[in-house]
Amino acid sequence: MSSHHIVRDEQEPALLIANGEACHPELLGQLLEWSPIVVVLDSAIWRVLDLGIKIDVLLGDFDRSLDLDVIRAQQYPLDIVHTPDQDKTDLEKGIEYLIARGFPAVNIVWATGRRADHSLTNMTNIVRYKDQIRVVMIDDHSRIFPLVGRYEKWYEAGTPLSLIPVGTVTGILTSGLKYNLHDETLTLGYRTGSSNEAAQDGFVRIEAKTGDLLVMECWD
Amino acid sequence: MSSHHIVRDEQEPALLIANGEACHPELLGQLLEWSPIVVVLDSAIWRVLDLGIKIDVLLGDFDRSLDLDVIRAQQYPLDIVHTPDQDKTDLEKGIEYLIARGFPAVNIVWATGRRADHSLTNMTNIVRYKDQIRVVMIDDHSRIFPLVGRYEKWYEAGTPLSLIPVGTVTGILTSGLKYNLHDETLTLGYRTGSSNEAAQDGFVRIEAKTGDLLVMECWD
Repeated sequence: MSSHHIVRDEQEPALLIANGEACHPELLGQLLEWSPIVVVLDSAIWRVLDLGIKIDVLLGDFDRSLDLDVIRAQQYPLDIVHTPDQDKTDLEKGIEYLIARGFPAVNIVWATGRRADHSLTNMTNIVRYKDQIRVVMIDDHSRIFPLVGRYEKWYEAGTPLSLIPVGTVTGILTSGLKYNLHDETLTLGYRTGSSNEAAQDGFVRIEAKTGDLLVMECWD
Repeated sequence: MSSHHIVRDEQEPALLIANGEACHPELLGQLLEWSPIVVVLDSAIWRVLDLGIKIDVLLGDFDRSLDLDVIRAQQYPLDIVHTPDQDKTDLEKGIEYLIARGFPAVNIVWATGRRADHSLTNMTNIVRYKDQIRVVMIDDHSRIFPLVGRYEKWYEAGTPLSLIPVGTVTGILTSGLKYNLHDETLTLGYRTGSSNEAAQDGFVRIEAKTGDLLVMECWD
């Protein structure tokens, strides 16, 4: 038996570029470096092409009638996936596309900022996929991901960490935070765990009994 | 009996400036024009003073130890309200301050963008005050307010309008929208009414049986 690991390309997170506020180019560059596939949502394509990024898939309902020939002329080869379903957002379709292709993880950028309806919907909709794909949503001030099972990570003292329930989350148990929760309930709009932080250099642990909890690492 | 109305200053919305992303100066200017009181939250004060705006109240826990003497030197008179309660966000304290002073309405700016935890918490926490004060949260792309009773407003055809449940909202009934809801349930993270729009020039009507619904007018 060998202890050598073979890391397959597909085990690195895919990169999904949505249509909100652009992140810092350096952050985008870091995420692009290891990404086995880059998927761009709908009319974000123009802003992405302007950056000269090599992309693999363009996905959307194209309801603003993009000129696909012009796009193909700038970016070839390019898979163009038409997803007309009006009951799903482009971001949901993008995540479901990556799940169908077997990717275990996805980093999502440009999904926050600008329109508040899109931003709030994007941030919270990721919870429905938490058992199918590892999702991390990233912008210049935030890393957002759903709690799946038990979360454990080493943080420096004072690192901001927020627990935001999407609806109601019960049985929340934490250790290593400045304000720990002891089998407590959080409810969006009424009681959330915003602006908590790591109490000391060491592990923070978070678990919950029922509901969908977002963990957010944020900075000013 | 006279049909003349006397509009008291205090019936115009107060203005609350939070600590997220600044809005366009022109939007801020419009809101300032009629505002009977301007309340600034905590360390947003520096950015507000830079704009040369006359403010009335500075409120916060001042946990980053603002130099209040320096602030007073730049802005006099100024009510400084120290609110050290760690269980509430600055925005909640600001709204509760205005409720206690009897203001019937408040416009909130700079409460979205930047840190996702603050942004999501701010947008959703306004629902808890919906029966005490009329709250509208405004940024360069969005007007956000909680549904209270039955909502009715005239819109131009195609105006984007999103219905975002904070948790679960039941018995949602709409008319005048492109995708109307007929006694339906929306649940954040699973089924929201994002990216709806006015079906034609005319009235849109929205009501719900239980839960907290955010109505969002948004634009790109």
